[in-house]
Amino acid sequence: MDTEVVAGWLSSEDLDSARERLPIVYVEAVPVRVDERGAVSEVGLLLRVRPDGSISHSLVSGRVWYGELVRDALMRHLEKDLGPRALPRLPASIAPVTVAEYFPSPEVTGLVDPRQHAVALVYVVPVTGECEPTQSALELRWFTPAEALSDAMAADMAGGQHRLVRAALVHCGHVQ
Amino acid sequence: MDTEVVAGWLSSEDLDSARERLPIVYVEAVPVRVDERGAVSEVGLLLRVRPDGSISHSLVSGRVWYGELVRDALMRHLEKDLGPRALPRLPASIAPVTVAEYFPSPEVTGLVDPRQHAVALVYVVPVTGECEPTQSALELRWFTPAEALSDAMAADMAGGQHRLVRAALVHCGHVQ
Amino acid sequence: MDTEVVAGWLSSEDLDSARERLPIVYVEAVPVRVDERGAVSEVGLLLRVRPDGSISHSLVSGRVWYGELVRDALMRHLEKDLGPRALPRLPASIAPVTVAEYFPSPEVTGLVDPRQHAVALVYVVPVTGECEPTQSALELRWFTPAEALSDAMAADMAGGQHRLVRAALVHCGHVQ
Amino acid sequence: MDTEVVAGWLSSEDLDSARERLPIVYVEAVPVRVDERGAVSEVGLLLRVRPDGSISHSLVSGRVWYGELVRDALMRHLEKDLGPRALPRLPASIAPVTVAEYFPSPEVTGLVDPRQHAVALVYVVPVTGECEPTQSALELRWFTPAEALSDAMAADMAGGQHRLVRAALVHCGHVQ
Repeated sequence: MDTEVVAGWLSSEDLDSARERLPIVYVEAVPVRVDERGAVSEVGLLLRVRPDGSISHSLVSGRVWYGELVRDALMRHLEKDLGPRALPRLPASIAPVTVAEYFPSPEVTGLVDPRQHAVALVYVVPVTGECEPTQSALELRWFTPAEALSDAMAADMAGGQHRLVRAALVHCGHVQ
Repeated sequence: MDTEVVAGWLSSEDLDSARERLPIVYVEAVPVRVDERGAVSEVGLLLRVRPDGSISHSLVSGRVWYGELVRDALMRHLEKDLGPRALPRLPASIAPVTVAEYFPSPEVTGLVDPRQHAVALVYVVPVTGECEPTQSALELRWFTPAEALSDAMAADMAGGQHRLVRAALVHCGHVQ
Repeated sequence: MDTEVVAGWLSSEDLDSARERLPIVYVEAVPVRVDERGAVSEVGLLLRVRPDGSISHSLVSGRVWYGELVRDALMRHLEKDLGPRALPRLPASIAPVTVAEYFPSPEVTGLVDPRQHAVALVYVVPVTGECEPTQSALELRWFTPAEALSDAMAADMAGGQHRLVRAALVHCGHVQ
Repeated sequence: MDTEVVAGWLSSEDLDSARERLPIVYVEAVPVRVDERGAVSEVGLLLRVRPDGSISHSLVSGRVWYGELVRDALMRHLEKDLGPRALPRLPASIAPVTVAEYFPSPEVTGLVDPRQHAVALVYVVPVTGECEPTQSALELRWFTPAEALSDAMAADMAGGQHRLVRAALVHCGHVQ
């Protein structure tokens, strides 16, 4: 079975309809640089310009297609968001660091996606190559763990995603 | 936000339509008995009669509804499959033991669901009360880890689910 | 083999000598109360009076004896610190939430133990019974996750242990 | 603080003495080859000749020194056992896949170390370079997951270590 099946593509209309009725499966990656001993030295966040001109930081994130393996979806979104030469190293286990549950309303979990109820599998992904964001992002910027954990960064991330950055860093031994 | 929302219910037709186009979010639980030190002593499997009269064993399993938290979906399916007095103890972390990817075709992962592409979050759930399967299952039967890991049991589980039993037991320190 | 062997006891002198030459194996538990769905609602911390009269908060913690299983060491220290009616529920998997590395010097990891280099396996342990600290602790006090994550609490914990509380809570889905 | 401290070295006599009275902290690594998507494609095992001339397979394994970080101990033993050009990629999190408890007697856990009670933190470590065992091992040989999970392999591994290979592979999604 080809996991890159055409059925992965829905019309916008069909996707809108499904989003009103079913949780949507997502994958999210926190890109990191690691030192030669594997310890996290930097966290990569995508920069996007908001309508008001301010800068927003976000994770690598996207939907799992029909017929697609979680591992393939992760690779596809990493390549889409970081470019073809990022050389991401997915973990050997597909068990996620955490599960992020997004809802249109902020009251449920604090993670917000106005479009849908999404269940996202979250991974920490060391990246060893050169990153060239190819889509809507301006660039990928690298931060120290302390910067990524700061309250200033939390204010610059939408939808509660700073929580996932913090969860990922704590998982890797960085705790404020 | 009420997580038991009516929107969780799709018409059969709508669900069939979505199943042809999107991966569906599932939760699965391996019910276990633990001793006073928390070590797994028995594994619970649901017994169902197949059309040919043979017995099949299966896990607690079911869909996550629109608007429903993963933790609530797990509780709902545990109660549905084990009855209201099973007293399941969900883990404190919602990170699953593993992610099970089911496809209509057996070639992709070896986990098969003829109806759909499902992405299932798999948990080990200690159960302390009395189990009374309330739906299509005949009963819940308890097995020692050695029995649950046996080739005979593998032959009695459909869709490759014996792999999840093995993964769960290995996770809990039981390895053949 | 009896895991409660006499060899578990070292003379003070022998233990002092070993502590200068080998990392010592520890277990640490973050006691929690969970709601009926398994989510963490409170964190338990032991209160001790410092020589200067101030109050210090700490985790359940102690050494693994020679010949003793990690699971048995955890049960022994939980009973010692929380009393015989605490009814702790150890996780089904013995893989720890994190590994805490304590050194006499604060520069290495930020976790400090003036007596030794200790490698501690850290667990989150739901407790369902009544807690009556039986040793040097004044009492066990329960805190909301927000209180346990606060900077005030960090200031009240010695040796960097507030990091383990934060790691445990993040692991359970509580992130500031 | 230099983690490669001289104090890491004990005289043979002192180490023998400590081994009779304290559990010893170990790290163990299951070396793997991964494909470009991070999935495990091969497992590496060290080959040693037994006194009777038969071949034994084993993991990368060794003691954590006094003053040494777990991550540094892992790197040291990987380099010692696989050579300086193996290019191991340690996981970003120091939480182990499992904890292996070795005892002189086979009755306790099935993991046997005649010399001591050892508590080993077990990791899966992707290796990307060239492996040249530099010490007592004859060579590192690569096996498919199916070969590594086979009963034949179990018979060729001493001390119950095949269980750790199985646990590691199951963790990475390979289940028989």
